[in-house]
Amino acid sequence: MTAAVTSAQPVLLVDGVPSASVPADDRGFLYGDGVFRTLRMVAGKPLWWLEQIAKLSEDASRIGLAAPDPAVLSGDLQHLPAQLSDGVLKLILTRGSGPRGYQPPAAQSVRRLVVFDATPVSSQQSSDLWVRICSLRLGWQPRLAGIKHLNRLENVLARSEWSAPDIHEGLLLDHAERVISGVMSNLFIWHCNRLLTPRLDQCGVAGVTRGRLLRLAREQGVDVEETDLNMQAVLEADEVMLTNSVMGLRRVARLESKNWPDPVISPRLVEWLNA
Amino acid sequence: MTAAVTSAQPVLLVDGVPSASVPADDRGFLYGDGVFRTLRMVAGKPLWWLEQIAKLSEDASRIGLAAPDPAVLSGDLQHLPAQLSDGVLKLILTRGSGPRGYQPPAAQSVRRLVVFDATPVSSQQSSDLWVRICSLRLGWQPRLAGIKHLNRLENVLARSEWSAPDIHEGLLLDHAERVISGVMSNLFIWHCNRLLTPRLDQCGVAGVTRGRLLRLAREQGVDVEETDLNMQAVLEADEVMLTNSVMGLRRVARLESKNWPDPVISPRLVEWLNA
Repeated sequence: MTAAVTSAQPVLLVDGVPSASVPADDRGFLYGDGVFRTLRMVAGKPLWWLEQIAKLSEDASRIGLAAPDPAVLSGDLQHLPAQLSDGVLKLILTRGSGPRGYQPPAAQSVRRLVVFDATPVSSQQSSDLWVRICSLRLGWQPRLAGIKHLNRLENVLARSEWSAPDIHEGLLLDHAERVISGVMSNLFIWHCNRLLTPRLDQCGVAGVTRGRLLRLAREQGVDVEETDLNMQAVLEADEVMLTNSVMGLRRVARLESKNWPDPVISPRLVEWLNA
Repeated sequence: MTAAVTSAQPVLLVDGVPSASVPADDRGFLYGDGVFRTLRMVAGKPLWWLEQIAKLSEDASRIGLAAPDPAVLSGDLQHLPAQLSDGVLKLILTRGSGPRGYQPPAAQSVRRLVVFDATPVSSQQSSDLWVRICSLRLGWQPRLAGIKHLNRLENVLARSEWSAPDIHEGLLLDHAERVISGVMSNLFIWHCNRLLTPRLDQCGVAGVTRGRLLRLAREQGVDVEETDLNMQAVLEADEVMLTNSVMGLRRVARLESKNWPDPVISPRLVEWLNA
């Protein structure tokens, strides 16, 4: 096995060809007209690849974009330098270039981007999370809810609310004061032997790790529900956890002034996810 | 005077330098983390330049972006080919490049784009508008309301609802059924000698032409109000008008099955705008 590349300079492919830039008339740039996935690559393999590209295609179709054949996306990975091993892989699909204006071009040509970042993600792997509550409230847009699209200004503004390095994540509520997610993660709570996660029918991003955990927990006979959660329900939970495809599942040790000193169910959920 | 360039190929400047592309790690591309203005250039001069760059700076500061000095933006225009005369100018500011993640880099380096499109805009100049009502409902996000930012998927989805070339524009309502704007324009109605336009406190883009018209009409002693409008108020109006910085002000001749055969106040408003 070759040593992991740790160069901080990301590797980029545009439509399978090495390139450091995108055309300035790309609709992803002009309008955020595209979708993406962020996932881990471990020992040269992208984790949960089939689920990732299935969700990418589903999200693309929600905004009227025909995703490329999975074989094309897999083929792009073959053009990454062979020595790349561990890091974060980002897949982006945009509606490509076209004439000026919001109207999607009649003949759409989807543009594919692959970004590989070898910056190590393992440093904080074993630590529990310290979390704050964001003051930004997510807006509702059922047409875009659940989709990982390129319109991410709410996340940027929410992530701008803190810079303290000991705070790992911020919780996002919607304007009805429902808790929806973290800025870059999905939320789960464990309470009275039930696994609960926010419904994402009005806002939020439905991550692949979230989907996997919901499925695996149901298969294990756990009582699972997607529901509305307020902050009180989160604070009273036996355990609070956050998931995304880069960090996997991690427990919250502290949320503002509330502490959860010991794991309850999280080690078992991590085991199911990694099985 | 030199002949107008009619090449369909837009002219591009990135940070004042001719370039057809942007770095793929630009936060405008990755997150829609930026703001823009679209304006007309007539006989080599950008229309309402000072108002445009003032609004660009104001929008930038709303998302925590320090806009360049106006002299820098004016300086960029000096790098456009001298023979460019009439067309559409787009100014884009993004939060530049940075490490992976939503958090804005500590040392922000704003990236400037200038796009000049010489495609003629005058062809439909004198015609009245035919308008439809979009089924997409705008979501509320007061933190982004009024700003012309790069998160424009709602506009893209709304504009995808029709392709008939005789329909010029679609009206957008919010999920409280308030009429907010057109997909690419602001809305005004004239009713009982009053000029009304939707409040943009929860969604919508506050255009420079809208701002100019509000100010000029007030100066002329017109009773002007930014208020909540429902569809009935629009349909019962004496005249309905749409504005943006490319087409200026144009009257609506038809909205779904409702017709307004004759102008009422629009010729005078056009006169004020062009004075």
